[in-house]
Amino acid sequence: SSKAYIKKEVVRWLVFGLIGILTGLIACVIDNMVILSTKLKFSYIKTVVDSCVDANLSCFHWPFLIWVGINAVLVLCGAFMTAVIEPIAAGSGIPQIKCFLNGVKVPHVVRIKTLVCKVLGVICAVAGGLVVGKEGPMIHSGAVVAAGISQGKSDTFHVDFKILQYFRSDKEKRDFVSGGAAAGVSAAFGAPVGGVLFSLEEGASFWNQALTWRIFFASMLSTFSLNIVQSYVKGTPWSLSSPGLFNFGKFDTTDYSGLEIPLFILMGVFGGLLGAAFNHINYKLTIFRKKYITSRGTQVLEAILVAVATATVSYLTLYFNNDCQPMRKDPDEDSVQFFCDDGQYSATAGLLFHTPEESIKELFHDIPGTFRPATLAVYCLCSFFLACWTYGLYVPSGLFIPSILIGASWGRLLAVLLKSAFPSATWVNYSKYALLGGAAQLGGIVRMTISLTVIITEATGNITLGLPVMIVLMVSKWIGDIFNEGIYDMHIHIQGVPLLGWEPSSMLTNISATEVMSHPVTVLRSYESVGRIVNILKNETHNGFPVVEDYDPFTEESPDSGTFGTFHGTILRSQLVTLLKLKVFEEHEDAQQIKKILSIKDFRDAYPRFTPIHRINISAQERNFHIDLKPYFNPGAYSVSHCASFPRIFRLFRALGLRHVVVVNRQQQVIGMVTRKDLARYRITQHLGKVNMEELPITN
Amino acid sequence: SSKAYIKKEVVRWLVFGLIGILTGLIACVIDNMVILSTKLKFSYIKTVVDSCVDANLSCFHWPFLIWVGINAVLVLCGAFMTAVIEPIAAGSGIPQIKCFLNGVKVPHVVRIKTLVCKVLGVICAVAGGLVVGKEGPMIHSGAVVAAGISQGKSDTFHVDFKILQYFRSDKEKRDFVSGGAAAGVSAAFGAPVGGVLFSLEEGASFWNQALTWRIFFASMLSTFSLNIVQSYVKGTPWSLSSPGLFNFGKFDTTDYSGLEIPLFILMGVFGGLLGAAFNHINYKLTIFRKKYITSRGTQVLEAILVAVATATVSYLTLYFNNDCQPMRKDPDEDSVQFFCDDGQYSATAGLLFHTPEESIKELFHDIPGTFRPATLAVYCLCSFFLACWTYGLYVPSGLFIPSILIGASWGRLLAVLLKSAFPSATWVNYSKYALLGGAAQLGGIVRMTISLTVIITEATGNITLGLPVMIVLMVSKWIGDIFNEGIYDMHIHIQGVPLLGWEPSSMLTNISATEVMSHPVTVLRSYESVGRIVNILKNETHNGFPVVEDYDPFTEESPDSGTFGTFHGTILRSQLVTLLKLKVFEEHEDAQQIKKILSIKDFRDAYPRFTPIHRINISAQERNFHIDLKPYFNPGAYSVSHCASFPRIFRLFRALGLRHVVVVNRQQQVIGMVTRKDLARYRITQHLGKVNMEELPITN
Repeated sequence: SSKAYIKKEVVRWLVFGLIGILTGLIACVIDNMVILSTKLKFSYIKTVVDSCVDANLSCFHWPFLIWVGINAVLVLCGAFMTAVIEPIAAGSGIPQIKCFLNGVKVPHVVRIKTLVCKVLGVICAVAGGLVVGKEGPMIHSGAVVAAGISQGKSDTFHVDFKILQYFRSDKEKRDFVSGGAAAGVSAAFGAPVGGVLFSLEEGASFWNQALTWRIFFASMLSTFSLNIVQSYVKGTPWSLSSPGLFNFGKFDTTDYSGLEIPLFILMGVFGGLLGAAFNHINYKLTIFRKKYITSRGTQVLEAILVAVATATVSYLTLYFNNDCQPMRKDPDEDSVQFFCDDGQYSATAGLLFHTPEESIKELFHDIPGTFRPATLAVYCLCSFFLACWTYGLYVPSGLFIPSILIGASWGRLLAVLLKSAFPSATWVNYSKYALLGGAAQLGGIVRMTISLTVIITEATGNITLGLPVMIVLMVSKWIGDIFNEGIYDMHIHIQGVPLLGWEPSSMLTNISATEVMSHPVTVLRSYESVGRIVNILKNETHNGFPVVEDYDPFTEESPDSGTFGTFHGTILRSQLVTLLKLKVFEEHEDAQQIKKILSIKDFRDAYPRFTPIHRINISAQERNFHIDLKPYFNPGAYSVSHCASFPRIFRLFRALGLRHVVVVNRQQQVIGMVTRKDLARYRITQHLGKVNMEELPITN
Repeated sequence: SSKAYIKKEVVRWLVFGLIGILTGLIACVIDNMVILSTKLKFSYIKTVVDSCVDANLSCFHWPFLIWVGINAVLVLCGAFMTAVIEPIAAGSGIPQIKCFLNGVKVPHVVRIKTLVCKVLGVICAVAGGLVVGKEGPMIHSGAVVAAGISQGKSDTFHVDFKILQYFRSDKEKRDFVSGGAAAGVSAAFGAPVGGVLFSLEEGASFWNQALTWRIFFASMLSTFSLNIVQSYVKGTPWSLSSPGLFNFGKFDTTDYSGLEIPLFILMGVFGGLLGAAFNHINYKLTIFRKKYITSRGTQVLEAILVAVATATVSYLTLYFNNDCQPMRKDPDEDSVQFFCDDGQYSATAGLLFHTPEESIKELFHDIPGTFRPATLAVYCLCSFFLACWTYGLYVPSGLFIPSILIGASWGRLLAVLLKSAFPSATWVNYSKYALLGGAAQLGGIVRMTISLTVIITEATGNITLGLPVMIVLMVSKWIGDIFNEGIYDMHIHIQGVPLLGWEPSSMLTNISATEVMSHPVTVLRSYESVGRIVNILKNETHNGFPVVEDYDPFTEESPDSGTFGTFHGTILRSQLVTLLKLKVFEEHEDAQQIKKILSIKDFRDAYPRFTPIHRINISAQERNFHIDLKPYFNPGAYSVSHCASFPRIFRLFRALGLRHVVVVNRQQQVIGMVTRKDLARYRITQHLGKVNMEELPITN
């Protein structure tokens, strides 16, 4: 047992390592495919425009149509992947991962099919010119990788490697998935510590040192393997600390003075207000979509429409607000002339034709004078509305990069204005203000806290800016929270997922178990007839049932008395299904036949996709047999007293990751069940300084 | 209620902010006092040596004696503070804070007296030349500040400001203390994120987003206020990002190649081995101290002895291994000639005369050629043994800086050797290897994980070295854990504190509640006689008691049957004491007199120092009265079934921060109690690849 214990620990570390490496490699693939396809598209259109300008033709139409065409086709592919093949692959994936880690069952979320759709879809969406990032999808990909390889089998491919069987449980899987999500963040932003904090902030309930350390290991290997591959791609093998690997570009030593802090606070306020507006518009849009855009066809069509609109807006901006700058001595390979005169290049084209990520780097780092204020203002407005329209489409789409894009443009605009107000000030640094604008906007939209601070600090590779970043994030969250909640939580609530928050509100102290619990309860006797079990499983959707004594289901009286026998333990739906499937029946109660006893292995083999009850064949004769549940039910299951308060039950669920708990009276008789849904139903919202308690609609 | 809720939230933020600011200021005081006293001492001795060398006298004795004398007096003061006035102020304070946050009652640990002794003591100890750091004490100071101001009253000064009464509970206080500890780390290392992670790693059980964010706020304000004050002290007001504020000095862009990683791993192995040796020697020493050095006199004497020994060793090293280097063009103000010829300065003196922290900066940043290999080797050995001897003395003493010192010297030695082996290699960077050596050594001794990585990264202000730091820390922890546990845990276990680890071992799955629980149980009836309550409180040390029905304490039979009435709830010792003190008695059971009902305020006023039971006067007549416990006991208290498994109970305790839980049988009758001590008794150790289960002696 001692050896087995150590072996299991070592294997666990190896699996976490593998998750990290694979996640890093997938991020690599996404990264390079996006870069490649964007480059191809860009150079093709550049050729068309150049030849057209050279020939002095009026060439408004052709390049535009070609551009729109390419984008529409790419987005069509992306939308097809999600709307038709695997709907759960849509969006950033962060809300889904958050629910999964919270303990909610989210169907299909960690399947291989989802991974494939997500990866291909996000490449198409980014290359198709949508205002989306690839970071959220990378995080989701990491989670799928983790769930996949930690189980040692694939139900999609009907392969069971017969390894890692001891990791086949919800709890273990959840641990691996948090590692995968962290590895995804780590690869997406080059932020291993940020990844760990992300996993904790979005998913953790009980902090565990050993688990955190393993998550960190996965994160580290993820950014490490990504860096190694990228350093080869860039032709400087093994040079891991090369600045080119920071996602936001290299920030040189950037000073700030304590006297700038009020300015940072104001930026936070502005970011919070703009973020709240973004979320509000997106909320209305999502409600609209839920009502009217329900068929696959309209979903794909909307995505194409957005692609066309994005391309059109970009093109119009480019044409009418053509920010021509004198060609620099050392032009980038991407500096394009477009509609500008000879010897000039178009700054707007640079912003619009690139991937959102490259645009961020330009906003952060291009030398002063690259952009006119008007360009920045128009760009900020366009990105705001396009990003808002895009999020929630049926394409894989990250929200981090668009948010930073919006914020970086108004941040840089602020710096330009400040510079013209104080021409001699040395503290007006464009990079700094663009970065803080981006942080404020992102904070105002997603409302993450410490993990976001660390992610941004790590992505910039500059620790001096940690404090200002922290300040703008803190302020933007405070301001945003006055009006509405973060966009991920908003989408989770729109879908009616029973997600449990961090803490029960102190306002719910007076609510007791009897008011929260579901009632009446379907209970099983410890020696139960097969027919009754089958009926219960067919009629009920619960995942766990109390096992009781002294209960007669056929008496009409007991439901009225409000009690359902003496509580002995609980049994899971999955256990019952397995018992039925393997036909562990007893023909006569008094027969001393040799019983078939199932081991833990039998239950593990079936994990995680248990056969649906209607697919199990039970003959009429078998329905009269019995199952002895005694060896299988959990006699030590947690139960709560009928006078336990709401916060007490809430903490039990949240800290221990429970899905249901039985409520008993003084005589240990079952009187009700509390499930996750019963708890998630009550929600406290703070809105414009008032605290409200609402009962939410929770769907199945 | 809505307004009260918001007010409470706002006040909570303000209190966290205040904790941060005060902690930062205290750190400032410690910092500047240490610098000042060291400077004074150094310049005085320099004068003596210089005058002696100028006069061409043989001057071995005088400066030595003066030096030893000053150090001995300073250390005497420090030892007096701790050994005589407040023993809990000794050591780094991290083990005590860890226990406090884990939910163990540690007497005196967060009192104002402790703070005063800690601050004065650590200044004396560092200035007295001991190989100690001021970081651990800063963390402890932060914790005391937090506990103090969050309660709105001081029992030491008999002041009650009648504010913040809603924070007077163990849980709230613990939250504030974790914020204070984080603020301490943040101030000590300039590492706000590291501080948050430290609090989580050492203390957290349930991760809570809002709490973490508030802790971060305190951390941020702590480093912020420290920086503001320090920037004034250094004459560059408001320049917050000035490099001089990084504790480990400014690391310039330091590259590393992926091919150096095997070397980093080897450094981790070496650090782990050396760390394990350090812990082993210190363990033996602590056991010896526990047996023989028990009186206050010997404790103070030992501290003075160590001070004299440290001074002697330093002086001998200085005399016999006088590493004279040619005086640089741009000499530091601290470059001293000492026993060197004119035009030279003594490199050894630089190392020995400075505070440990300054020595670290020299090891990290002084230009190549500053130290001879022999100097480094001797210095490393001396620091190792002196630091090992020092830790556990009755002086406030941090362990971070000495550990880094040891590691930085062997790390730099390695770099010197590598340079002589590969003279043309560009990758041999002294700073990098000294830093990684320091990290490896520190990791090998304290065995912290992610928080240490972040602290070191933040303290160096250079994010590129994050990955190598992570690697050496991971390896050194793995290697060290093969031999023994981290030094903080070791000291906690030596003291027999019932600290609960992160996870129950899977090996304990088969142990059930009935095997763990204490038995028989002292129970109270819901209508109980005053005399019996008084007797129970006098004879029992438990903090909570089950309240039952159907139990007759005077029947001799019930203890044999093994049950103690039907469980209705639990009541705390502190509640009983308050009820007795305020004499909430009923003279006759059937009298319809108007009962005095206590409010939550009555209980809060007494928090946290409840009157001891022997100080409450109960007359013989009153002993026959009764107390009605019904309005006060907690009817929703958690209980576990007799067949609940050990891991299940453990998780309940750990995740919810419980101190005791009642074990009931199927009929809801009390059959036992499980306390923290019962759980902490079982411990799984991994030693040289073998897993053992041991039962520990747990003291009260």
